[in-house]
Amino acid sequence: MSLITLTTDFGSVYPAAMKGVILSINPQVTIVDITHYIPHADIRAGAFALYSVVPYFPKGTVHVAVVDPGVGTARNSIVIYAGGHFFVGPDNGLMVPAASSQGDMQICKITNFGLLGDVSATFHGRDVFARIGAYLSGGMPLEEVGETTVDHVHLDFGTVELGANFISGHVIDIDDFGNVITNIQASDVFKKFHFEEHVRVFGKTISFLGTYGYAGEGELLALIGSHGFLEIAVNGKSAAKRLKIQRGDEVRIKKR
Amino acid sequence: MSLITLTTDFGSVYPAAMKGVILSINPQVTIVDITHYIPHADIRAGAFALYSVVPYFPKGTVHVAVVDPGVGTARNSIVIYAGGHFFVGPDNGLMVPAASSQGDMQICKITNFGLLGDVSATFHGRDVFARIGAYLSGGMPLEEVGETTVDHVHLDFGTVELGANFISGHVIDIDDFGNVITNIQASDVFKKFHFEEHVRVFGKTISFLGTYGYAGEGELLALIGSHGFLEIAVNGKSAAKRLKIQRGDEVRIKKR
Amino acid sequence: MSLITLTTDFGSVYPAAMKGVILSINPQVTIVDITHYIPHADIRAGAFALYSVVPYFPKGTVHVAVVDPGVGTARNSIVIYAGGHFFVGPDNGLMVPAASSQGDMQICKITNFGLLGDVSATFHGRDVFARIGAYLSGGMPLEEVGETTVDHVHLDFGTVELGANFISGHVIDIDDFGNVITNIQASDVFKKFHFEEHVRVFGKTISFLGTYGYAGEGELLALIGSHGFLEIAVNGKSAAKRLKIQRGDEVRIKKR
Repeated sequence: MSLITLTTDFGSVYPAAMKGVILSINPQVTIVDITHYIPHADIRAGAFALYSVVPYFPKGTVHVAVVDPGVGTARNSIVIYAGGHFFVGPDNGLMVPAASSQGDMQICKITNFGLLGDVSATFHGRDVFARIGAYLSGGMPLEEVGETTVDHVHLDFGTVELGANFISGHVIDIDDFGNVITNIQASDVFKKFHFEEHVRVFGKTISFLGTYGYAGEGELLALIGSHGFLEIAVNGKSAAKRLKIQRGDEVRIKKR
Repeated sequence: MSLITLTTDFGSVYPAAMKGVILSINPQVTIVDITHYIPHADIRAGAFALYSVVPYFPKGTVHVAVVDPGVGTARNSIVIYAGGHFFVGPDNGLMVPAASSQGDMQICKITNFGLLGDVSATFHGRDVFARIGAYLSGGMPLEEVGETTVDHVHLDFGTVELGANFISGHVIDIDDFGNVITNIQASDVFKKFHFEEHVRVFGKTISFLGTYGYAGEGELLALIGSHGFLEIAVNGKSAAKRLKIQRGDEVRIKKR
Repeated sequence: MSLITLTTDFGSVYPAAMKGVILSINPQVTIVDITHYIPHADIRAGAFALYSVVPYFPKGTVHVAVVDPGVGTARNSIVIYAGGHFFVGPDNGLMVPAASSQGDMQICKITNFGLLGDVSATFHGRDVFARIGAYLSGGMPLEEVGETTVDHVHLDFGTVELGANFISGHVIDIDDFGNVITNIQASDVFKKFHFEEHVRVFGKTISFLGTYGYAGEGELLALIGSHGFLEIAVNGKSAAKRLKIQRGDEVRIKKR
């Protein structure tokens, strides 16, 4: 069995061209869409989506990721191999949090142009990354992709400050429920707060609870989301709308 | 061949984690998305989506359904087996109309925790239902899921009243075309009305026709939708917008 | 291996019924969604989506396409075979640009009703096209579909005028990035203009460049899109919103 995932900001239609290319090369592969609705050109949001789901895929999976505002310019195209997973996409940081969470990273630049056909200037998802991903899913060794490198664009989810009675970080994602996901990890949260405790965040005093349904209908709560990060939510509604929060906003949580 | 369908209110990204879990357990399975865009926490809307498509899947299909505002609270997790189909999800009524339409229901609570790994409090779609669905799709017998039960949360699409010259019911779905789907079945409609007849509904006099294209462009019509229920539509436009109708609204159709 | 693509304006849920039908007939087939978000009843937009991705699928692929405002009326249901690809859908022009781009077209009307079960008046995607597509994907010969014909509804993307110092055509698509895609082919563009040149279009003077990233952030540019047509874009934003352009609008590009 071979497995490819796709993560892009392409919306509808364009991903199908990638799938046609992949299935032309490796007809037996299973393709899973992670999402094609990353906010356009938002590399950090794409990095978080990939990071949050990669741990649930088996070793050997090839993750093709394309949020690529620099397509056709001088940025490199790369493959990262880490912990048994392959990551194929632009060298803009998109794949780094997911890859580095799986193990040490081996990186190859895609310089073996013999593997490619005509390459458009505007759609490397179809003309470069889908092709390379398909070959890797069929068992092509990493080294055939091109020259190894250690240089690459770095990206992380930013720093978290643990103060005497507060933690500060920022918002890395708003999910489709309107839940506000921060870069503060569960392990840090539990150093400062415990379940059932009241906390102060975004100008509100709310409860830190185990799950959504422990808050009243329409009530704000803090919780550890399924990705392992501190999340601010409303039971049954959008916390992002209620609090007018956006990706990138600062968050500071403290004891009441 | 083994087949799993997914029906959730998760939107983008989260369903991919479920697929990673499923394919890690059963790499050969085919996964079909029914939808991930059920209105958040709208169990009744999820139940209708599942009910409307399950008849078109082969026996042996495993339907994993997660519209689950009570995730992590005391509600049970269950598997229903009916007419050769498996249904895996929360015990909140979501799967009952689809399952009971297929045959007598056998129900097991998911109590065999040895089948599960770490279970988060907020994402049983990934940590419970995807895993159990994957094992069932691979041939695990129903009994291994846990203890059988007859208790479960019931859900139906509400009652329909057949009066002397009217039928009343309510709106159970608005589809992506803006077609207004009621809980009044074709068999009841044909007891009272016949094609080409004028009927009175939502304060308008419209024609009861065989299909959309028999109405003029932009004209209201009543018809039997592809799911077998009375539907109010506009040829080429959204009837729900035109009539300002929402899910749950009452509908009363009578002779002109 | 057998492969079916789906292109519809159905949005969510309804395509799943088609997939259930297909997998009941051919459990081994791989199904790829091209899109289910064609603007409702916009046959021309559906034709362009199909046309733009079909070249990337292998010979033998069965493309089921349903943008079908005339469902249940007198319009024919057809299969077109061209250049190794099968196209299954309504005879309303939807499949003609994609099919004719692959080779000479052989057309059969779907008149072998023995292949079908009960056919609803409103959902031929499920009751006719999915079934026929599934049988073709399993190797059923084209002739079994029904009688051959040469009559069919034609559709193209409209004419392009090459003047002394201008080209005029019209907008055939707005993609999910808000890029404005015209019906002017690259070969015509290069007869009149060259990269780095300033051109005048939609009342603006902009640069004709190789890719998005060569324009400044938020800057308008003209380019050849990945589909091979002239495209007007904004680097990182929606050109359609900026210029208030819609599908069908005229476009006239000239030297500054």
